[in-house]
Amino acid sequence: MFFASDNWAGAHPDVAAALSEAAGGFDPAYGSGAWDKRVTARFSEIFEREVAVFFVSTGTAANSLSLASVAKVGGVVFCHPEAHIREDECGAPEFLSGGLRLHAVEGARGKMDPALLHEAIGLFPPGFVHGGRPAAVSITQASEIGTVHSLAEIDAIVDVARAHGLPLHMDGARFANALVALGCTPAEMTWRRGIDLLSFGGTKNGCWCAEAVVLFDPSRAGEFAFHHKRAAQLFSKSRFVAAQFEGYFADDLWLHNARHANAMAQRLASMFEGLPTARLAWEPDANEVFPILKKNTADRLKANGAAFYDWRAPHWYEGPIGEDEVLCRFVTSFATREGDIAALFGCLG
Amino acid sequence: MFFASDNWAGAHPDVAAALSEAAGGFDPAYGSGAWDKRVTARFSEIFEREVAVFFVSTGTAANSLSLASVAKVGGVVFCHPEAHIREDECGAPEFLSGGLRLHAVEGARGKMDPALLHEAIGLFPPGFVHGGRPAAVSITQASEIGTVHSLAEIDAIVDVARAHGLPLHMDGARFANALVALGCTPAEMTWRRGIDLLSFGGTKNGCWCAEAVVLFDPSRAGEFAFHHKRAAQLFSKSRFVAAQFEGYFADDLWLHNARHANAMAQRLASMFEGLPTARLAWEPDANEVFPILKKNTADRLKANGAAFYDWRAPHWYEGPIGEDEVLCRFVTSFATREGDIAALFGCLG
Amino acid sequence: MFFASDNWAGAHPDVAAALSEAAGGFDPAYGSGAWDKRVTARFSEIFEREVAVFFVSTGTAANSLSLASVAKVGGVVFCHPEAHIREDECGAPEFLSGGLRLHAVEGARGKMDPALLHEAIGLFPPGFVHGGRPAAVSITQASEIGTVHSLAEIDAIVDVARAHGLPLHMDGARFANALVALGCTPAEMTWRRGIDLLSFGGTKNGCWCAEAVVLFDPSRAGEFAFHHKRAAQLFSKSRFVAAQFEGYFADDLWLHNARHANAMAQRLASMFEGLPTARLAWEPDANEVFPILKKNTADRLKANGAAFYDWRAPHWYEGPIGEDEVLCRFVTSFATREGDIAALFGCLG
Amino acid sequence: MFFASDNWAGAHPDVAAALSEAAGGFDPAYGSGAWDKRVTARFSEIFEREVAVFFVSTGTAANSLSLASVAKVGGVVFCHPEAHIREDECGAPEFLSGGLRLHAVEGARGKMDPALLHEAIGLFPPGFVHGGRPAAVSITQASEIGTVHSLAEIDAIVDVARAHGLPLHMDGARFANALVALGCTPAEMTWRRGIDLLSFGGTKNGCWCAEAVVLFDPSRAGEFAFHHKRAAQLFSKSRFVAAQFEGYFADDLWLHNARHANAMAQRLASMFEGLPTARLAWEPDANEVFPILKKNTADRLKANGAAFYDWRAPHWYEGPIGEDEVLCRFVTSFATREGDIAALFGCLG
Repeated sequence: MFFASDNWAGAHPDVAAALSEAAGGFDPAYGSGAWDKRVTARFSEIFEREVAVFFVSTGTAANSLSLASVAKVGGVVFCHPEAHIREDECGAPEFLSGGLRLHAVEGARGKMDPALLHEAIGLFPPGFVHGGRPAAVSITQASEIGTVHSLAEIDAIVDVARAHGLPLHMDGARFANALVALGCTPAEMTWRRGIDLLSFGGTKNGCWCAEAVVLFDPSRAGEFAFHHKRAAQLFSKSRFVAAQFEGYFADDLWLHNARHANAMAQRLASMFEGLPTARLAWEPDANEVFPILKKNTADRLKANGAAFYDWRAPHWYEGPIGEDEVLCRFVTSFATREGDIAALFGCLG
Repeated sequence: MFFASDNWAGAHPDVAAALSEAAGGFDPAYGSGAWDKRVTARFSEIFEREVAVFFVSTGTAANSLSLASVAKVGGVVFCHPEAHIREDECGAPEFLSGGLRLHAVEGARGKMDPALLHEAIGLFPPGFVHGGRPAAVSITQASEIGTVHSLAEIDAIVDVARAHGLPLHMDGARFANALVALGCTPAEMTWRRGIDLLSFGGTKNGCWCAEAVVLFDPSRAGEFAFHHKRAAQLFSKSRFVAAQFEGYFADDLWLHNARHANAMAQRLASMFEGLPTARLAWEPDANEVFPILKKNTADRLKANGAAFYDWRAPHWYEGPIGEDEVLCRFVTSFATREGDIAALFGCLG
Repeated sequence: MFFASDNWAGAHPDVAAALSEAAGGFDPAYGSGAWDKRVTARFSEIFEREVAVFFVSTGTAANSLSLASVAKVGGVVFCHPEAHIREDECGAPEFLSGGLRLHAVEGARGKMDPALLHEAIGLFPPGFVHGGRPAAVSITQASEIGTVHSLAEIDAIVDVARAHGLPLHMDGARFANALVALGCTPAEMTWRRGIDLLSFGGTKNGCWCAEAVVLFDPSRAGEFAFHHKRAAQLFSKSRFVAAQFEGYFADDLWLHNARHANAMAQRLASMFEGLPTARLAWEPDANEVFPILKKNTADRLKANGAAFYDWRAPHWYEGPIGEDEVLCRFVTSFATREGDIAALFGCLG
Repeated sequence: MFFASDNWAGAHPDVAAALSEAAGGFDPAYGSGAWDKRVTARFSEIFEREVAVFFVSTGTAANSLSLASVAKVGGVVFCHPEAHIREDECGAPEFLSGGLRLHAVEGARGKMDPALLHEAIGLFPPGFVHGGRPAAVSITQASEIGTVHSLAEIDAIVDVARAHGLPLHMDGARFANALVALGCTPAEMTWRRGIDLLSFGGTKNGCWCAEAVVLFDPSRAGEFAFHHKRAAQLFSKSRFVAAQFEGYFADDLWLHNARHANAMAQRLASMFEGLPTARLAWEPDANEVFPILKKNTADRLKANGAAFYDWRAPHWYEGPIGEDEVLCRFVTSFATREGDIAALFGCLG
């Protein structure tokens, strides 16, 4: 009954197998080998355009280097207050970019309000050195609270950013979960909407350690390569990531995994909705479910061995949470089985 | 005939198997799971004292964060001019430490001369803010040119560092190769000599991606954890490194691999010595061989498909290199077979 | 009619004279000369304890280096949303501290609410590397909107910071204006309350360029000296700052200047209160006045040559501002004459 | 008998007077006032082209921000081993540029050897991320050891830099001394030779605190302004620097001061040459004299109150220095009187 995070799972057997198969033989190091080239080509296919791909060790690295690559002196990145880059990365984006600052822009359901984004950018008029200057906009898809930006919502944010000449970054730690939720193509969810830089995460969805920065403008690769190396993110035996991605993409494993995780989240949500001592704080779009539980229900679940986290209510959340209630987060993954959910609720029976 | 680098190999089958076996089941993320604890305990056993261990993605990360953890404002790290941290890491140690500078201290055979180290430290008198101040000493074991510091040589460097109150870092990207060359214990080569911080490399010796910072003073772990996270080096599914180390340490695989690589280097050296158109620039201690080849011999080897690098002669190298000669580097690994060596020289027959 | 800022004035004649008198003769450079020692002793007298003093070129430098000196990896500084360090320094505190982040804590009248401070610190539980960790609390005295923390208000903030073991920084760009407003001693407003680090500003109150970091724990001076030099803030002919401070402190010039500026602000406030087309947004404590003016009144003042700024209403400000109204800032200084004020309002007559 | 440094002097009376005269009246802050504009125009006249000028607090700041403005990720700046940026700035150029590294290029008489520069740049082949990449070349005019690059010597260095597409920075802390030594125009010594960025120092030559970055491409000013502010170098009452420069340039005071200092150095050199217990290590070109003294002569001078420094012999210096000898540095300035020199040698009579 592990619902603490999708990174408590190990690796999907197909990914593990692909990695094992890559163990033998010699190949040039540092990203220049055959595996890397093959996987980069695969990314280009998947995104329906030529892209540059850099493997990194963590989602934090992917986000930080994406932003570093568009940093300006005195630069400010606009993101939702709950963004992983702002809340959960210990200042890595600021540090690895040599001094970017993050400016929070509120919005309901974990998504920036485009009007507030416009207003926030306006706080930094051109040439006003005291305040600094806008450098980029970053959105998280799926968001930190399990919601997914619709294509129209992405468009609205992109429009504001573009009007101010700002590049757009997407934190796709749960890219696949969002993608299958929307039912669109990777291209439709990214560069066709105006996304410039993508943190593409495979780790939470069945890989061991497979995170990548995808540059939709591959002419920036030469410059990015120095960010990559200087941040100590250039793997020597980089085929160990490439091989994981090969397994991940083969036979659409990544989409199957994400659909499974999302379906498990829907099931979990239904179960909570059917419970007299629970209600959903908001509807899940992807693989995270946020119920408000009676405290003794939450306690019973924990006592029974369920792993999940209490959660702080977002600023934008308007619903009341009683004194005897607690907001919780449950995350599903490729590895969540129906039996896990049954077992979770079984203890309440 | 791949002698370009020990990181052109993949993973040893035992390491690959150990990783595959770890794929199933749930475990807490971010280094707090069962695998991580087990492997940390194993490190403590191997080093015969309690140590703190942090997994990182690259040797560059291990070096950079080791040094970052002892950085001072205006701080200077003393290292050999050929040190990896100075020549091959794109400024990562300086960047990730928030501004350390590296000061080169010459010495023959890739090892700092203790007298010159003493002299170099003396260039930074206490409180003289204009120049900066000493922060640490870093040595590489085995060195970048395939030599190994004897225990007495380590002692001599440590003595100078200690006399100035400086912590010592060892870049052990090829730790195992040095260890079996000396035939001593890990403890004897490190903390018993006064080493404080170790970059422990498993990648070049049979792992996919298994690098660790070992702190011999585990009370520093709490502080190090922030360096680790802020540099985007905290793996979520960290068991994927832990499992590799489990396989690496099991049945002394790491020592067997290193002995094999070193033996292959000795065989390679003997072959070069027997060649009329080659001579060794210096004797190899570990798994790197540096012959001086007649250019047409080098060309024939390359034409025949051998992968190896031309090398720049170190400053300290006094022997003549003729105009028709070239200094080359050949690296062996766990994956080098006797047949590879035979094939290499076969083409010259 | 210059009310744009207190830094539009030049230097007070006494400060200018003191500087001129210091022009001749030789004195050791880089802060080690006789002038510097004399002025440091004077600071110690004024603060009734031994202090260490470092001259810097700007208030931004004083703030940034103060905070840098207590920075931690992953560290977070708590400050009011309107704090100069957060709004007006282009990210210098973050950059010069090697990566501190600023966390805004709301509070009415430009002053942090201690309860909200407590809550904000609680967002960073010990050892939770993902979020980072508290490093310091910074308050501005007088605040950016012309209010002054009472001694009790300082106590309340210090209590919270101390309970979490955090050092306290005071941005005293307008230290003297606050001091005379409270009518207490420099010691009472700072270290006797628990302030550890002070940005002591003389520039806005009659100097050319006289800003200093005051360390109430002088044992930290040795370490600070490296921050100072590395940030390019160590003046060679530092007596040029020392001499200004000599003139500034002589015959209590600094207190006289501040009292004058504050009195001019009071007079200005009274005038606004007497105006049918104006009202005060809040009462001024020091030398800044924030009236809400009918737009056409503001326009007439500007048309008549008055220099002042429109101002963004703070979050905490609850009063209504009409569509035909504008919030404005007027700043007085040692150089503001009664005639300037008369002239300002004369045009409305 | 103060020969320790040209920054032990105060301010020239004319500079002090110009500053005093600027004390009254109001003027916009942060570089936008009338004084700043006037002085910027004066710089453009002096350099015979439109330039952008930014005032900074120290030579270290001028150098660091100049280099920061042309920094690249993984970037390397080439300079002489004795360069102030490398030896005397506590890592400020590296820190304030967000991670540039300095690569020393030897050369006799304190000046880079163009052939060695070419070779050094060649160590960083394009796209080789491990080593990093060239970012700029920096020369010091006059050099740290009192020599001056001839125009031909500048050309030779510029040619190498340009061939590799690198911008050129000149550290002109003693710009005026070099200029009058060469007898050329400011334009001829800088942008007409290909210099892009200049640290223009006035402090050592008669000002209190007057250092500037001069950008020969003024279109870079908008970007530089953010470096300037973020490094805490944007003075509020910037006219205090502008006024000094006005006094400095008026009636060619700066050239007179430099000629005087250089002449005093020549006189000092002649005196040393006439002494049986002294000889010049090399001929002075500007205002620094480096004699090799018998130790007891040096001791007698110090005992008699002379202030000067012992100096470490440069690597390139080939002449022998006896065990009973010591290399010393004597610096002259606008404030050095003939009587000071007479007094210095009087004690030896």
